[in-house]
Amino acid sequence: MFGNSADLLANLPPIRTAERAQQLLAAMAERPLSESKGSGEREGAKPPQALLLTNLANIRWLTGFSGSAALVLLTDGDLLLVTDGRYASQAPAELEASGAQGRVVIGRSGTEQRKAMAAAVGRQRIGLEADSLTWSQMTAFEKDWFPDAEFVPTSGLVETLRRRKTQAEVARITAAAAIADEALADVLPLLGDEPSEIDLACELDYRMRKKGASASAFETIAAGGPNSALPHARPSQRRIRSGELLVLDFGALVDGYRSDMTRTICSGGLAPEDRSMYEVVQAAQSAGLDAVAAGVSCADVDAAAREIINEAGLGDAFLHSTGHGVGLDIHERPTLSSLSKDVLGADEVVTVEPGVYIEGRGGVRLEDTVLVTEEGCTRLTRSPKRAEPN
Amino acid sequence: MFGNSADLLANLPPIRTAERAQQLLAAMAERPLSESKGSGEREGAKPPQALLLTNLANIRWLTGFSGSAALVLLTDGDLLLVTDGRYASQAPAELEASGAQGRVVIGRSGTEQRKAMAAAVGRQRIGLEADSLTWSQMTAFEKDWFPDAEFVPTSGLVETLRRRKTQAEVARITAAAAIADEALADVLPLLGDEPSEIDLACELDYRMRKKGASASAFETIAAGGPNSALPHARPSQRRIRSGELLVLDFGALVDGYRSDMTRTICSGGLAPEDRSMYEVVQAAQSAGLDAVAAGVSCADVDAAAREIINEAGLGDAFLHSTGHGVGLDIHERPTLSSLSKDVLGADEVVTVEPGVYIEGRGGVRLEDTVLVTEEGCTRLTRSPKRAEPN
Repeated sequence: MFGNSADLLANLPPIRTAERAQQLLAAMAERPLSESKGSGEREGAKPPQALLLTNLANIRWLTGFSGSAALVLLTDGDLLLVTDGRYASQAPAELEASGAQGRVVIGRSGTEQRKAMAAAVGRQRIGLEADSLTWSQMTAFEKDWFPDAEFVPTSGLVETLRRRKTQAEVARITAAAAIADEALADVLPLLGDEPSEIDLACELDYRMRKKGASASAFETIAAGGPNSALPHARPSQRRIRSGELLVLDFGALVDGYRSDMTRTICSGGLAPEDRSMYEVVQAAQSAGLDAVAAGVSCADVDAAAREIINEAGLGDAFLHSTGHGVGLDIHERPTLSSLSKDVLGADEVVTVEPGVYIEGRGGVRLEDTVLVTEEGCTRLTRSPKRAEPN
Repeated sequence: MFGNSADLLANLPPIRTAERAQQLLAAMAERPLSESKGSGEREGAKPPQALLLTNLANIRWLTGFSGSAALVLLTDGDLLLVTDGRYASQAPAELEASGAQGRVVIGRSGTEQRKAMAAAVGRQRIGLEADSLTWSQMTAFEKDWFPDAEFVPTSGLVETLRRRKTQAEVARITAAAAIADEALADVLPLLGDEPSEIDLACELDYRMRKKGASASAFETIAAGGPNSALPHARPSQRRIRSGELLVLDFGALVDGYRSDMTRTICSGGLAPEDRSMYEVVQAAQSAGLDAVAAGVSCADVDAAAREIINEAGLGDAFLHSTGHGVGLDIHERPTLSSLSKDVLGADEVVTVEPGVYIEGRGGVRLEDTVLVTEEGCTRLTRSPKRAEPN
């Protein structure tokens, strides 16, 4: 499954969405209601008869449509996607290419779109995505768009199904990971010139795109010296000096799918106290990777990494959770934290990224994106973990 | 006010937010309720006593805080910003730098954040931002976070105040525009090599960052040949050939503020039918710019540009509205469309961007970002409008 990014990109299998509508209808019948604690009063209410999707990543997963505006109504035996004139040719082409069984209606105006959707919604009980629908949209749906319908909040229905990736999805994340690996190898020699954080981030982003990424997966982090102690530092004009810790956290976007990787690097040789910090994080990341397998609870993976850092007396310096799912979104389900109730399943793609941050001195984070298997996991990000390049 | 981007960047005046809380409280007292049609039943309801902001661009405008997570409660005489441990030093520093009179509370956990905010919310009647608050957040606020409060939807309160830019805000947009102008001049010579759309977009983005942009203002459009007929084309692997129309729509991000510019270019000489399309759009854009001034209705600016295109018999090929406000968001108020009720005011920053799109043949769009003045407007994007470079 590995190779250079150009070969991987040239051989991406098509994404097939044909079976997803049935999966989603089954999930809706099983677990229709919002998971949020506040919705207790609705327990026992009837499940919705249809689902009206507004979240674009969820719409892409279900239909293959990659545009920036659409509504999808899914009922047993019918899928209706309504979008605007910009997507008149793209929307039907993408649904056909992915095998989605559905109808596309192009509404040239807001009124046309509303009418097309209202005719299909009718008097049904409709599940809405409570985590992305705004209060204004909700009010418009209830009063103007679909006055005869009844609405039910749902939470995480599609997001839960998105956890398990198909081979075609994994191929895209693998290609994105390969692009990021190659871009990192290309920019390491630049460290000799002591570039600014911004310049280095810019070079990484540029090289990922030249290698075929449609964009960076998220805003690249390049944090040197004291900035490396900030888990979410933004690149600054500060120069990255020899002998300083440098945290690089970045990924590529390939056909909608993302990779995520962190390496900590020190050109010019680690100070002894930085080396011990590096070794602790490396051991913790390794323990986290070793813990990953289908059937293992996410909290146990977090604990495996955290224990090593705790034992080194640095528990208070590990400021975040151990990882998260990656796919169409850079942060998706499951969450690998101490409070997570999730259990890993085969074919899920998650990150393992412990870190230690000491204000004023610096930080170390190491992160891979991995594919969960029955036996363990396969690393998709393959750059070596060595603090001192070459 | 113009100069090279490096000088402009080196001389950005600080953003001052000290007076904005009072402006917002006054606006809330005047026009407290949602503008959405559906909220008719609430007319006559009492105005909120406080405003709970969740929209991050609005929070940045009010307080100077630029992080990725915060809640702000504004009451008469008090501004409370609650965020998490990542921003423990950044948040107080940013509020102080901008002169915002407010308190910062760092909640290390969700529970801590909720408690800090709940103590301030109490039993008040709270205005919420209905256009960005999700149904899930709303449910959590009502049931778990603030069970004693009463909620009122608001729409566009801060967004309306954001229309009028201060000198410091204009300085950032001007610098962003200068960066985009310079990047365009730098990449034009590459057209001789017939690069792919992706490669050209990538070079533009790279050069904007090297000149000091923190990012592109939005996903750069580079659309050649038949792709130029798609107003929202995404860059593809297709090579841009000599003699083809090429639409470049891009901008830079400087300290939170954005520029927006489109040029249509044809290296190697325009075909006669493309030239006539270009000249129509150029005349329409010029008429739109001439119409802009404080006190003019946005619909009249749209009409001024549209009339020229209609008269040329291309009215059906102008597929979008004439422009939009630009600032912290790439699309903000006002809207320059035929249906707009907005009237332009001095110190607003808007785009003027008519276009004509003929499927299978190609398209032309020309766009400037301009500062509205009492007498007319000042162009901030200053690249020449010539279809044939050099």
